Amino acid sequence: MVALDAMGGDKAPTVNVLGAINAAKKGIEVGLFGDQAVLEPLLDRHNPQWRKLPLSIIHCTQTIAMTDEPARAVVKKKDASLIRAIEAVVHGCADAIVSAGHSGAALVAGTLLSRRVQGVMRPAIGTFLPTKNGQLFCIDIGANTDCKPEYFEQFALMGHLYVRTVKGINKPRIALLSNGQEPYKGSMAVKSAYALLEKNSQIDFVGSLQARDIFDDTADVLVCDGFAGNVLLKTAQGMAGAIAYWLKQEADRSILKKIMGLCSKPLFNALKRKTDYARTGGALLLGINHPVIIAHGHSDELAIERAIVYAHEVAQTKFLDSFNHELTSLIGSGTLSDPGSSSYRQLTV
Amino acid sequence: MVALDAMGGDKAPTVNVLGAINAAKKGIEVGLFGDQAVLEPLLDRHNPQWRKLPLSIIHCTQTIAMTDEPARAVVKKKDASLIRAIEAVVHGCADAIVSAGHSGAALVAGTLLSRRVQGVMRPAIGTFLPTKNGQLFCIDIGANTDCKPEYFEQFALMGHLYVRTVKGINKPRIALLSNGQEPYKGSMAVKSAYALLEKNSQIDFVGSLQARDIFDDTADVLVCDGFAGNVLLKTAQGMAGAIAYWLKQEADRSILKKIMGLCSKPLFNALKRKTDYARTGGALLLGINHPVIIAHGHSDELAIERAIVYAHEVAQTKFLDSFNHELTSLIGSGTLSDPGSSSYRQLTV
Repeated sequence: MVALDAMGGDKAPTVNVLGAINAAKKGIEVGLFGDQAVLEPLLDRHNPQWRKLPLSIIHCTQTIAMTDEPARAVVKKKDASLIRAIEAVVHGCADAIVSAGHSGAALVAGTLLSRRVQGVMRPAIGTFLPTKNGQLFCIDIGANTDCKPEYFEQFALMGHLYVRTVKGINKPRIALLSNGQEPYKGSMAVKSAYALLEKNSQIDFVGSLQARDIFDDTADVLVCDGFAGNVLLKTAQGMAGAIAYWLKQEADRSILKKIMGLCSKPLFNALKRKTDYARTGGALLLGINHPVIIAHGHSDELAIERAIVYAHEVAQTKFLDSFNHELTSLIGSGTLSDPGSSSYRQLTV
Repeated sequence: MVALDAMGGDKAPTVNVLGAINAAKKGIEVGLFGDQAVLEPLLDRHNPQWRKLPLSIIHCTQTIAMTDEPARAVVKKKDASLIRAIEAVVHGCADAIVSAGHSGAALVAGTLLSRRVQGVMRPAIGTFLPTKNGQLFCIDIGANTDCKPEYFEQFALMGHLYVRTVKGINKPRIALLSNGQEPYKGSMAVKSAYALLEKNSQIDFVGSLQARDIFDDTADVLVCDGFAGNVLLKTAQGMAGAIAYWLKQEADRSILKKIMGLCSKPLFNALKRKTDYARTGGALLLGINHPVIIAHGHSDELAIERAIVYAHEVAQTKFLDSFNHELTSLIGSGTLSDPGSSSYRQLTV
């Protein structure tokens, strides 16, 4: 069973209910965690036959709001849909959990309840960014805003394993996000991370990548701290939106240009599909013991459905069992730096 | 006279020479700093009459390469075109300098030779990013990768003054780049900066802005550290390039789509003009005593010409005299936090 935080997300609970119905129609068992008084009428309205589908409601009295401070919310709101859903997975009542709600709270609750995999310093969130002719797996995209160089190295190992497993690339090319290609570029943490990645023989480190070049298919994994990764991903989303806006604005300038715009609509639609980040489904929280899938806050009905399908796949294939086993052995092998040995310890920002 | 680092930039010295010729034709006196044996034949070839224009060559034997470590290059390469050009401005032989070369070296040399304005902790680079219906001034976009919260506050004051002067907006809306809108979001430095900006009554602080929303015209100035600012700006550039690539790829799928693409070419050309960051001219290094204009490394002939025209304007209007005077008084006024008082001092990354 996939546990769905039915109350989380900008368009919750409506799109969550719709996404759950569609996933259940595909035969996936979904447990909707949330306010029964809200969810039941919604289910009745959108599918009066919903009781014949593998759907159930698990009543929770609380919801974590986006304004809640994550750690406090996790401690105080014991009966929140997100917390109850993660607990269900940890206690074996569900196989995976999907939330489009407060990602910070999902991270904190996931880490506290599911616990970190042996050797992992910080769980991380990775996602695929569409590139000119493929995809780039960016890790971390928001879980860890302040990173020690050793975290970057662990993100690289997680990215290496994830892309190897999901894409079947034997030795994925790992790049480090920086403000220039040269090794002397970067923040102090990034420069120290560069040195660690360079001497790690477990991965194929191809050097620094500046943000302008991330779309050029020169790497398979992009390692970054969660702050820069978040800026990168969201700038790409914002720019796609701005370009669509400018094109429409330009098309509105004259009747001739309007016709041009209408004629080329199929081109733009194809582009829209490519850059519609809200529809990619969800990102698996890496480095913890159970499958927690973080969906985009803007998720629509299709995105929720896709995230549930993805969660189901992750659970069915027991993806995390082998992933976490390999991660521990990669981290445990002598090549990985000891956090205490980094020269970065002496540095302050 | 505008001092041009004729050897700096990806397409130097050709585009530098062409840009200088075009600026000189507009009556701007340009001194080309670089290898005479290279520059003279280039000038002869592109404009045999160049000696009748207000152009001169100042011979320098060295060039700073992109692979040079900035601080080392500035100390060792005393006769580099960039260093000699900045010296000319500092010694009063030129009014402003333009370089499309090593921006890190330009920053170090500018800071060392021109010196920081009284009270300024770190010089910064700001630039306008096109938004849906206007522009957003982003500062810093690459000069300072590791920033104390107090630096952010000074960047905010510089941005405030710059946008007020250039755009005539009396109290520009200042936003802080973060990984979410909520005050609890952000790296430790960003969170501390948020607290400083919030209590600074000299500026109109409108809160945190996540990268997805930077195009929405809700702020006039975006304050960030140079690493995140660089990632933001270059992701926007990269995304614009990727979208152009995907549209072309989509258009190549069938003859019908090719016709669609051709029909809507004027729309795309308008878009290209909007997102052609290499052509914006240059960014003034803020916080030092003399006008140093950093042009885009990818600058073409038109970008160099525009940067020279901009440098000329900055010099003619004595922009920095009033800007630096006001900056010192803003920093000097009691409202600005004392760097020693920040709680951030106790934090390590």
